Amino acid sequence: MVKFTPSFNRLVVELSKLPGIGRKTAARLALYILRRPLDDACALADAIRELKERTRFCSRCFHFTEEDPCPLCTDMGRDDHLLCVVEEPQDVMAIERSRSYRGRYHVLHGSLSPLDGIGPDDLKIDALLDRLQQGTVKEVLLATNFDVEGEATALYLANLIRPLGIRVTRLAHGIPLGSDLEYVDEATVNHAVEGRREL
Amino acid sequence: MVKFTPSFNRLVVELSKLPGIGRKTAARLALYILRRPLDDACALADAIRELKERTRFCSRCFHFTEEDPCPLCTDMGRDDHLLCVVEEPQDVMAIERSRSYRGRYHVLHGSLSPLDGIGPDDLKIDALLDRLQQGTVKEVLLATNFDVEGEATALYLANLIRPLGIRVTRLAHGIPLGSDLEYVDEATVNHAVEGRREL
Repeated sequence: MVKFTPSFNRLVVELSKLPGIGRKTAARLALYILRRPLDDACALADAIRELKERTRFCSRCFHFTEEDPCPLCTDMGRDDHLLCVVEEPQDVMAIERSRSYRGRYHVLHGSLSPLDGIGPDDLKIDALLDRLQQGTVKEVLLATNFDVEGEATALYLANLIRPLGIRVTRLAHGIPLGSDLEYVDEATVNHAVEGRREL
Repeated sequence: MVKFTPSFNRLVVELSKLPGIGRKTAARLALYILRRPLDDACALADAIRELKERTRFCSRCFHFTEEDPCPLCTDMGRDDHLLCVVEEPQDVMAIERSRSYRGRYHVLHGSLSPLDGIGPDDLKIDALLDRLQQGTVKEVLLATNFDVEGEATALYLANLIRPLGIRVTRLAHGIPLGSDLEYVDEATVNHAVEGRREL
């Protein structure tokens, strides 16, 4: 009994390799694609191919880019003494959107997670140390996430970087803007009180 | 400031056209594709293109197929007197998996939903009536969903089909297999009691 057609099955298999997409969602997406005009489906297929052909990771900071090194690495208006270490390219975006940072970046592409079998060799840590050894960077801002893996990664990196005589900083903890104090968890309030500032 | 690369942006736009995929999910998927080997990304792009090239909707029952008419319409072992009407191609799959039905199918491609602007002309209802007018079908099994839209569609179709002298049936309501009676909603229990059968 023919149930799905071979080409439908094949797309479902390919789509369900994507993170967070199971077989049912993949079938729903494939059906949607089947219903759209041919041009729409081709636009999606071309966009996938084009992304792979044009966009790479920068060989210096490992952020994605169409030129290597990337514009963030070659921009003369940025401070070479300051290096911000993040887990993922999206984190570079988040910091850039805040318009609060004008140094360079280094993307680790993950965080230390022994339970998932991700150790230091799976991240861009060697490349980070190579960059630091060149002696230009005076301060490393560790902007890994504030979950267990991110904190562990920050601690691990701090212990590697401090012996090089480089200042190591971390993003400040505190009350997020627009929060109702009543609903902020006590650990965050604790950090906010300890880190209180003169008005 | 270059943030995402143009090819990355383009894929995010294309992916976020898919149902249930917002911009953040699209960015996550695009990043995943960027990280995979070129072959994997090409396999996905090719699968999309191939699906559109090879798979169409059957001109008779509107289920998807690589041949027209589809194997379900041309299978000589199926009963021409019985026609099952469903909302979506996935519903054909669900009924086929149950191995309980050996008649033909008709896929409406949706259900009546005035609030979403979906009326009878947006569904394959004219084609259904054309098929019924040929006089072969003796019974129409309405297997639209059991939500408000599906029930309304079934009612609408029943009123159109009964005057043609064709028997109209609906899937039975009752307790799903493996259920704990305590947790079944009262409307379903009500249907199950009314539809009770001799053992």
